[in-house]
Amino acid sequence: MKLNNDWIVGFVDGEGCFYVGINRSEAVAVGYQVLPEFRIVQHKRDIKLLYAIRSFFGCGLVVPNKSKDGDVFEYRVRGHTALSRFIVPFFEMNTLHTAKKFNFLIFRDVVHKMSEGRHLTVEGLEEIRKLKGRMSRLGQIKIESDLSSDAE
Amino acid sequence: MKLNNDWIVGFVDGEGCFYVGINRSEAVAVGYQVLPEFRIVQHKRDIKLLYAIRSFFGCGLVVPNKSKDGDVFEYRVRGHTALSRFIVPFFEMNTLHTAKKFNFLIFRDVVHKMSEGRHLTVEGLEEIRKLKGRMSRLGQIKIESDLSSDAE
Repeated sequence: MKLNNDWIVGFVDGEGCFYVGINRSEAVAVGYQVLPEFRIVQHKRDIKLLYAIRSFFGCGLVVPNKSKDGDVFEYRVRGHTALSRFIVPFFEMNTLHTAKKFNFLIFRDVVHKMSEGRHLTVEGLEEIRKLKGRMSRLGQIKIESDLSSDAE
Repeated sequence: MKLNNDWIVGFVDGEGCFYVGINRSEAVAVGYQVLPEFRIVQHKRDIKLLYAIRSFFGCGLVVPNKSKDGDVFEYRVRGHTALSRFIVPFFEMNTLHTAKKFNFLIFRDVVHKMSEGRHLTVEGLEEIRKLKGRMSRLGQIKIESDLSSDAE
């Protein structure tokens, strides 16, 4: 399956999600771990497409989506190194057309701050928390709705 | 906003729906009206994108989606003439990558049968009903889930 940049942009405009998790963690001095994630959730009937997307980006994993019993999979990229090297530059060069682009720009800023180690400081964590607060919830809710659609 | 073929295919792979309604109707001799519809549902924040898609295809309407109170709009094309002239040829030339393409192929067959007037005969209507039965419900359910996402 041959995917190209414009198809990827269109599909991510529809199905992609740029998410920033901030979770309590004993493992880091500031007490919270920042977990940026880019993901595309699909029914298992399109799992080959998720693998093709993984090949396209050259990073990430295709894994079962935890919320569903085997019928739903996701392509996901976590970790600021892969995100800043592969995902962020792609969507900087290939602009999204939906309002999802605003979420992407905030997501990019979070990933950049993490590359500078800002998430490991109290001030930087607060900056990231503010950025996360500016992200629209719609892109994130989308995933939940995709899942509920398969439950029907 | 400049859209191209590949972006359209990607976005429709994510957000498009090929639907065939068969409704009881006193107005036609066979007692049922066949209503094929291609649609893309989006939150109103992306209404400009729906208008750009309408310009791209050169047919169809952007209208409020009835199920929601003003927050959700849809680009839709009804009527086998516009569908067989603009929508079907486009997706024949520009293949969808998701399993939605199988729904499209059935949808195309329905539109072709309508162009031949088959929907106005009892036998043709039965053929269309069988074709509709082979369409995956997932593409259709998607719209409901898009709506529920905005209710959260």
